[in-house]
Amino acid sequence: MINKANQVNKALDEAVPLQHPQKINEAMRYSLLAGGKRVRPILCIASCELVGGDEGLAMPAACALEMIHTMSLIHDDLPCMDNDDLRRGKPTSHKIFGEDTAVLAGDALLSLAFEHVARNTKNVSSDRVVQAIAELGSTVGSKGLVAGQIVDIDSEGKEVSLSTLEYIHVHKTAKLLEAAVVCGAIMGGADATSVERLRKYARSIGLLFQVVDDILDVTKSSEELGKTAGKDLASDKATYPKLMGIDEAKKFAAQLVDEANQGLAFFDHVKAAPLYHFANYIATRQN
Amino acid sequence: MINKANQVNKALDEAVPLQHPQKINEAMRYSLLAGGKRVRPILCIASCELVGGDEGLAMPAACALEMIHTMSLIHDDLPCMDNDDLRRGKPTSHKIFGEDTAVLAGDALLSLAFEHVARNTKNVSSDRVVQAIAELGSTVGSKGLVAGQIVDIDSEGKEVSLSTLEYIHVHKTAKLLEAAVVCGAIMGGADATSVERLRKYARSIGLLFQVVDDILDVTKSSEELGKTAGKDLASDKATYPKLMGIDEAKKFAAQLVDEANQGLAFFDHVKAAPLYHFANYIATRQN
Repeated sequence: MINKANQVNKALDEAVPLQHPQKINEAMRYSLLAGGKRVRPILCIASCELVGGDEGLAMPAACALEMIHTMSLIHDDLPCMDNDDLRRGKPTSHKIFGEDTAVLAGDALLSLAFEHVARNTKNVSSDRVVQAIAELGSTVGSKGLVAGQIVDIDSEGKEVSLSTLEYIHVHKTAKLLEAAVVCGAIMGGADATSVERLRKYARSIGLLFQVVDDILDVTKSSEELGKTAGKDLASDKATYPKLMGIDEAKKFAAQLVDEANQGLAFFDHVKAAPLYHFANYIATRQN
Repeated sequence: MINKANQVNKALDEAVPLQHPQKINEAMRYSLLAGGKRVRPILCIASCELVGGDEGLAMPAACALEMIHTMSLIHDDLPCMDNDDLRRGKPTSHKIFGEDTAVLAGDALLSLAFEHVARNTKNVSSDRVVQAIAELGSTVGSKGLVAGQIVDIDSEGKEVSLSTLEYIHVHKTAKLLEAAVVCGAIMGGADATSVERLRKYARSIGLLFQVVDDILDVTKSSEELGKTAGKDLASDKATYPKLMGIDEAKKFAAQLVDEANQGLAFFDHVKAAPLYHFANYIATRQN
């Protein structure tokens, strides 16, 4: 997985050269190359390889997913949104470059994501490229990340139902993980049935990712997490442990792992090993 | 042209239904359906028809151009950018919905632009759809609108050369008009030579558009323009009238009309009538 992350980092580095106007490209690179875990790109490539494609087919889509993810972090961190000063242990984009440049860096990364897939995907039929672009597009807007963020902002300081909590997480987190798996499968040459089976896997791990995040926030120290622990509780944010209790939240996480594994049952077990491993990694991660 | 604009308005209305979460879709619709002149969509459709395609082939791309244009207006108007209260005679997005929603509405419109072309373009080969998406993408990011806006922001209050001014306008205005013409031609089935000839036309009217805008800013009232007049002068912004004088700016505009017409010379004159008319319309518009 570390090797895959390095390949992704190399491709991202090449996708945003440091050209004129310097400042905007610097800002894009600052956030894009800040060393995240590259969860979405790795998932995209693993899904492509599972259905018989090679890494190169999925790499532009993998990079696009990271660009979209980074855009959403830059914009969510803005003073008019979550007003965060730190991200991945470094000052946030607007702290370094100013709010105007941070807004623009997000915009540029978002459009580059689509351009990059359209321009640089090779040896994949244009039909599939168009399908992947439609999938990517639906993860961002009023049925994706933006919908999740709007409902999240509206929910702060309010009593939130389990269904609203799930709506937020599905849209803010799970949809992009789903797109990662689905786009990887599309680029790798999967038939429609395999794409939908992998979508089921992706939906389960998408929700799992957030449930585990919520559990870690109440069970770990800031030192163990590498970010402020107990932040959700302090800010009175709705979380799974808060709404279900910690034991039920852990049971729910275990159930989601089972569901994810069921989604993989139709595939060759050896080839699917990275995706099984991935579900397990998310379920057992400690930070 | 009014008929075309109505068709575009109808398509835009359908492209952003008022669904859950209501607030983000309201914000997207508020700016998108605020009654602009639909210059870019009409240009896209006219270009498609010139090369023998029908309106329907270009309509999703035409809508995408308006979504991208609207996104750039919403974000440029933000307090951290140009801090504008009025746009098309109405309060700007952040004045009505708040800064957070305005940022998100722009993000959602930008991603919807690409998704809409990918999902709703019919009877055009996927090869052409991918080509159009790449063209659209390059108009936004660090080689397009964002590049223009960054250099524009950096230039405020400074002495600006004519070449910097041109860089700003080419990127902030002309590139999107160019994409309108080029995407229309691609969707309409044009060969590569015709696409490049139309690109020449588009570059001239792109610059023309901005020169006329600058002239109107110093010669018209806010009421006539539907936006704050004299703002460029007040903010000490570089404009063509400021750098060349008003008479030279008008001569430059006339020269750009000639260049645009030359770009059309290879096409059937009757079929090209709407694009000739368009150059003339831009040159003589009063708001």
